[in-house]
Amino acid sequence: MTMIDTSLLAQENTRSLNALKTDYDSLGERLDRQGIAIDEIKQKVSAYGVAIPSWGVGTGGTRFARFPGPGEPRGIFDKLEDCAVIQELTRATPSVSLHIPWDKAVPADLNAKARKLGLGFDAMNSNTFQDQPGQSHSYKFGSLSHTDTATRQQAIEHNLECIELGQAIGSNALTVWVGDGSNFPGQSNFTRQFERYLDSAKSIYAKLPDDWRLFTEHKIFEPAFYSTVVQDWGTNYLIAKELGDKAYCLVDLGHHAPNVNIEMIVARLVQFGKLGGFHFNDSKYGDDDLDTGSIDPYRLFLVFNELVDAELRGAPGFNPAHMLDQSHNVTDPIESLMVSAMEVQRAYAQALLVDRKALGDFQNNNDALSATTTLKAAFRTDVEPILAMARHENGGAIDPVSVYRASSYRQKVAELRPAVLNGGSGIV
Amino acid sequence: MTMIDTSLLAQENTRSLNALKTDYDSLGERLDRQGIAIDEIKQKVSAYGVAIPSWGVGTGGTRFARFPGPGEPRGIFDKLEDCAVIQELTRATPSVSLHIPWDKAVPADLNAKARKLGLGFDAMNSNTFQDQPGQSHSYKFGSLSHTDTATRQQAIEHNLECIELGQAIGSNALTVWVGDGSNFPGQSNFTRQFERYLDSAKSIYAKLPDDWRLFTEHKIFEPAFYSTVVQDWGTNYLIAKELGDKAYCLVDLGHHAPNVNIEMIVARLVQFGKLGGFHFNDSKYGDDDLDTGSIDPYRLFLVFNELVDAELRGAPGFNPAHMLDQSHNVTDPIESLMVSAMEVQRAYAQALLVDRKALGDFQNNNDALSATTTLKAAFRTDVEPILAMARHENGGAIDPVSVYRASSYRQKVAELRPAVLNGGSGIV
Amino acid sequence: MTMIDTSLLAQENTRSLNALKTDYDSLGERLDRQGIAIDEIKQKVSAYGVAIPSWGVGTGGTRFARFPGPGEPRGIFDKLEDCAVIQELTRATPSVSLHIPWDKAVPADLNAKARKLGLGFDAMNSNTFQDQPGQSHSYKFGSLSHTDTATRQQAIEHNLECIELGQAIGSNALTVWVGDGSNFPGQSNFTRQFERYLDSAKSIYAKLPDDWRLFTEHKIFEPAFYSTVVQDWGTNYLIAKELGDKAYCLVDLGHHAPNVNIEMIVARLVQFGKLGGFHFNDSKYGDDDLDTGSIDPYRLFLVFNELVDAELRGAPGFNPAHMLDQSHNVTDPIESLMVSAMEVQRAYAQALLVDRKALGDFQNNNDALSATTTLKAAFRTDVEPILAMARHENGGAIDPVSVYRASSYRQKVAELRPAVLNGGSGIV
Amino acid sequence: MTMIDTSLLAQENTRSLNALKTDYDSLGERLDRQGIAIDEIKQKVSAYGVAIPSWGVGTGGTRFARFPGPGEPRGIFDKLEDCAVIQELTRATPSVSLHIPWDKAVPADLNAKARKLGLGFDAMNSNTFQDQPGQSHSYKFGSLSHTDTATRQQAIEHNLECIELGQAIGSNALTVWVGDGSNFPGQSNFTRQFERYLDSAKSIYAKLPDDWRLFTEHKIFEPAFYSTVVQDWGTNYLIAKELGDKAYCLVDLGHHAPNVNIEMIVARLVQFGKLGGFHFNDSKYGDDDLDTGSIDPYRLFLVFNELVDAELRGAPGFNPAHMLDQSHNVTDPIESLMVSAMEVQRAYAQALLVDRKALGDFQNNNDALSATTTLKAAFRTDVEPILAMARHENGGAIDPVSVYRASSYRQKVAELRPAVLNGGSGIV
Repeated sequence: MTMIDTSLLAQENTRSLNALKTDYDSLGERLDRQGIAIDEIKQKVSAYGVAIPSWGVGTGGTRFARFPGPGEPRGIFDKLEDCAVIQELTRATPSVSLHIPWDKAVPADLNAKARKLGLGFDAMNSNTFQDQPGQSHSYKFGSLSHTDTATRQQAIEHNLECIELGQAIGSNALTVWVGDGSNFPGQSNFTRQFERYLDSAKSIYAKLPDDWRLFTEHKIFEPAFYSTVVQDWGTNYLIAKELGDKAYCLVDLGHHAPNVNIEMIVARLVQFGKLGGFHFNDSKYGDDDLDTGSIDPYRLFLVFNELVDAELRGAPGFNPAHMLDQSHNVTDPIESLMVSAMEVQRAYAQALLVDRKALGDFQNNNDALSATTTLKAAFRTDVEPILAMARHENGGAIDPVSVYRASSYRQKVAELRPAVLNGGSGIV
Repeated sequence: MTMIDTSLLAQENTRSLNALKTDYDSLGERLDRQGIAIDEIKQKVSAYGVAIPSWGVGTGGTRFARFPGPGEPRGIFDKLEDCAVIQELTRATPSVSLHIPWDKAVPADLNAKARKLGLGFDAMNSNTFQDQPGQSHSYKFGSLSHTDTATRQQAIEHNLECIELGQAIGSNALTVWVGDGSNFPGQSNFTRQFERYLDSAKSIYAKLPDDWRLFTEHKIFEPAFYSTVVQDWGTNYLIAKELGDKAYCLVDLGHHAPNVNIEMIVARLVQFGKLGGFHFNDSKYGDDDLDTGSIDPYRLFLVFNELVDAELRGAPGFNPAHMLDQSHNVTDPIESLMVSAMEVQRAYAQALLVDRKALGDFQNNNDALSATTTLKAAFRTDVEPILAMARHENGGAIDPVSVYRASSYRQKVAELRPAVLNGGSGIV
Repeated sequence: MTMIDTSLLAQENTRSLNALKTDYDSLGERLDRQGIAIDEIKQKVSAYGVAIPSWGVGTGGTRFARFPGPGEPRGIFDKLEDCAVIQELTRATPSVSLHIPWDKAVPADLNAKARKLGLGFDAMNSNTFQDQPGQSHSYKFGSLSHTDTATRQQAIEHNLECIELGQAIGSNALTVWVGDGSNFPGQSNFTRQFERYLDSAKSIYAKLPDDWRLFTEHKIFEPAFYSTVVQDWGTNYLIAKELGDKAYCLVDLGHHAPNVNIEMIVARLVQFGKLGGFHFNDSKYGDDDLDTGSIDPYRLFLVFNELVDAELRGAPGFNPAHMLDQSHNVTDPIESLMVSAMEVQRAYAQALLVDRKALGDFQNNNDALSATTTLKAAFRTDVEPILAMARHENGGAIDPVSVYRASSYRQKVAELRPAVLNGGSGIV
Repeated sequence: MTMIDTSLLAQENTRSLNALKTDYDSLGERLDRQGIAIDEIKQKVSAYGVAIPSWGVGTGGTRFARFPGPGEPRGIFDKLEDCAVIQELTRATPSVSLHIPWDKAVPADLNAKARKLGLGFDAMNSNTFQDQPGQSHSYKFGSLSHTDTATRQQAIEHNLECIELGQAIGSNALTVWVGDGSNFPGQSNFTRQFERYLDSAKSIYAKLPDDWRLFTEHKIFEPAFYSTVVQDWGTNYLIAKELGDKAYCLVDLGHHAPNVNIEMIVARLVQFGKLGGFHFNDSKYGDDDLDTGSIDPYRLFLVFNELVDAELRGAPGFNPAHMLDQSHNVTDPIESLMVSAMEVQRAYAQALLVDRKALGDFQNNNDALSATTTLKAAFRTDVEPILAMARHENGGAIDPVSVYRASSYRQKVAELRPAVLNGGSGIV
């Protein structure tokens, strides 16, 4: 079963294939001059995948408002279909990351649907930053670090439930992000609060299956506006260290203080064996959750430069999970996710082009100019022909967005799925 | 009619009056040594008022969740009652600022209720950052600066409607804040977008009654995350200048880039005759909308230092509107607003204590150390006795929060007003 | 006269010319498919030039230390020779911007030397942020805004002297940057200080020749650390407006608060006819003065996107001056300036490739995704063949850095110019 | 021997003693109502001391310029005399922290001078961020993390020399701050660079005397502008952890990214037993090195709130070193250091006033408003009478700045010490 008509796809690809071949060949020749075999790069790009968050296919919003688009998914099964569209056209997003309780469903049904759509399941995401109807204890003042034991226990059990569901659908990682923190100096005792967080995290970790990993996520602010329990990678590292070998740090590109050098944090976590993975997105101000690479593509490249370096030198325990995590407020989420998945691939492909032998020599000789121009030369190489050829050979689209638009998928689901009337939150 | 039992108030005040008198007298003596008459300061503090935003009495939230408290106001009339509590206890918040359409009601009913509660109406606030049920055109891609003429016209008319309602209830100012901007480089043409904004603003300004003022508000980001049409005071100034003499700039303390010197912006706007007023709050990261003075009380003082300086030197056209604008996510909104109103008063009182003659001399002599310690000496004076005495003499509470708690107002309204079940937004 | 041996240059170019032709042709074919004539782009790039600051050819430093390299220029005539190297190899830097008093010399000598080297003179830069030996009044507490009349007068006269020298050497612009500000709250009265600044600036402006322009430069902080008189574009705009039609705002890319959208500021200044020009560089934290495009090349492109848009639509009075302004602490300044000049050209070339008709349509239809991918498509085009071909055809180097290294210019001047022994400042 | 005439001091104190007694008594009465014994607070304040950095008594500067004042100290012995003035008048600064090689001298001479002046020696500071005349290897590209073994070895040996000198003068701590980092993406391999840093640090640590502590200092940027080896507390913690039990993290208040919650970092380091101490100062933008408490006094209080909390609960291994580290560019350094020492004491005194029992209860009950107003109540208490009384009883000045000015110390040393003519650096 495919969501996008394969004959349409074939027909669209046919139109641009000749130009693609020309561009691929001329790029190949140019790379060959540098001693790089384009097909090897293509092969690596082909094998690369980034997970899609189930919530990403719905229109996002802000505390001020949400403006839904047509054909909003009504539940996890609609979401999986939207994810399948992205995978069919880009061949870069083989798995979906679920968010509980939003995506709660009978495991067998999830498995059946995913199998049919050719999708797998990535890390599970728990939610203790919102109250759900019927919930005994409120997370208004925290969850895993709440002052009240029963509330913490409720949050722990929710995480265990996520693991249980995850096991039933083939996931092997749990991502824990909490909004716990404070809005006022003095509201929380930083030390006690973190002790409680660690205690709760240990209770979850104790039940983590042997082949699972636990990812904790840091964030400087929002929803807490004075302090956040897991505010930066320093605290995140302490957590992973306290918990044990299956605990790792997750890096979301939008969760840092202004000006912070994120690629360096990535390097540090790799060096100390604690890089768990990424939530890819982009930001200009705060946790803007913009499309990956849309604001600062060079920064994304510099992150991948660290990842490829770690991969090539075989850094111990290096096996990061890659996921998109974006809020699509003004675009069709399917389009944004396709473009973003390709941006991640692009950064990966560019980082593969870096002449690491030359770079290492320049670094050793403190030839800063040549070192940096070595990175820049890789970055400014237009690798689009490599990405497009990889997609095409994998059965995807040379130009995913234009095939998607030609397919009228959005219009079709808009007819099936009722319009969402009330999109505004009015939370200010 | 009073919302808080006056005998309870009297009884609570009686308990702390002696200590207050002692503290007031010893402070008076100390100020007298510096040549300052404490009663004159008290008189100015007494006469000072800051407006309350109607939406401030409801529990706020973030894009992740909202956790309502007991007794949430059901509409504008409940909100006015909550505002009256604040005014009765603090005697610092004589007026309320309405937000349309949230607070739309029959003007006569609004007037009657306000009169009964001893409240007035401050600036009107329009809303073109959300879609309302039944609205013809969506603000998803902007309002006053939208590419589509009909959408802009709808936004203009909404603002005119706000003026009309405002005239009926005795307001004489319109505050315009729009979320218009973009989330992606290239999404909007900055120049065309600002031209459209100016055109729309001129259409509103053209209908502004002669005795009204128009306040436009700048904000660096959120809800737009790449660019915002009115992103800073520079653009805001251009707007006020283009519109005319009744147009002024509104400064929200949380709407600036990190590290920006806000008190200097205040000084510039005063100097060029365009300071319209304030939305007071505090912030550590972005537009956190925290309680005024809760994060950086010295910054608030420095803002008031500029205001008092302008007041005393009689800066031409200087007449700023003062309003709180906060989001109360983890506190009882009534308590937060009472404390915040007092913090604003406190900064005003401290700024009144600055020895401006000495300060001016130090500035002229470039005695930086003495200049700054002159400000600090005023700031570190504990003016609480002045504020408390002013409240007491005006019929308010010496300790508003403890009287409020003693009154069980929150528990009483919680019985009358149904609990809000679904507080979560789930917009990520 | 040339600084670099022309036969060496020719020989080096010969080695890479064939590959360049291949790349140029395949890029030409690809652009042709998009309806773009590569030769037209090349022509525009050819005609483009960015000025070099005379001080840029010396090794820079920080308040902690300066680590000079070999062959540091001993004065303005050495500096001009270094600048000539850059121009000979890149053909992108036809003029030099002088800094007075550092570069003070007999005008006829300057003219003769420049003529011989094929260089012109760009904007003059005054210096009132340092004390010079024998100076009557210190700028410790300010210059154009100093509380003392005589100090202000001295600063005014210095600027007039810069104009006079500039007239003698064919310059037609004066750039004024002052460090005036304060380090403590209360140290300066913001309003009085700005009034004094405006008065002084008017005195300079009054003497500005008719065919000259005055550029004022804003900067958020450093060397003043609490407030700066010309702290942002808002204040800078007010200055240019107060002064008159020959007064314009200069934008240095590193002089803004964190997260600020600089391309939007550029658009605003263009729209209101006050964009004077640029000091190009890059930054990650503050006024880092790093090589242009080395940290965030997409931001540089977005700035040029605004400039090309303004150029193509014929924005009234649009004629910005382009200059590099960098501090080269760890590289050979000549290499950094060559690479940076080419980065500026690159951003210009990429911005020329933007399909503005399509972009405008996407903007009008609020197709944010297509709009932003339109920009991205231009940005990720590797325009190096265009730049290299333009250089080659203009008599420059296909690969300037490698020709420069092959020339041993640095080693040669190191023999002529005495080593600078004491590079450290020890100012902490 | 005293630097300030004791009879002058006595005479000045006499003038303000009566007012002080009145203020002290009325504050005592007020605190008594809260169950606080003012004399106990005074006793703790009396016992508190903060070290002075030897370099702090000279006028500081920026990369643009330095404007020396009259009577600049000519060397370490002049500096010690200036430090003695500060201690005599404030009785809050019993020790001096030396910077090598700037303060290198015969240990016996240092000891003799210090004994005579009543001063002790605090932590030693090494300098591998500048090149010294005659130095074999340059630190242009790093020191402890340099790619070259010999350069690293030179930096290690310099640190060992600092320890040796420190042992001879009674110091028992070494503070290591390096500027190592990079200015360009790719210039350094983050991982290799940090490995080298750790190796070097281990070599120093291996020679650390048993009763010494090693303090490493993190800083986000400057003098390196793209990356810094020890960029934040996370990396700093890893260093201290790798080194061993005598290694601790030093926190400089100006060394963090914008918006970062510093008091929380302090709490984390205390919790994990790695808080070594502080470099106190204040900042608005970057490492501004402004006078402590001059920009955000509440933040300083919040740091002390953590310290007092740790002190009172007996946090294991809690014994932080306190030092000022400021750059005095526009004030008399002696005045700035006196005022700053008192600001640190003030924050300490205010933090001692916090009702910790009540605060703990509010925190446990999630009464955010009461918790934060509990802190604020302590902060806004004007503790000046406590500080002044402690100074007076310890033989210091009630008003140190006015006694200092009355003493004409600056004018006297200006006669003895030759004027510094060339203050400008001209490093841009």
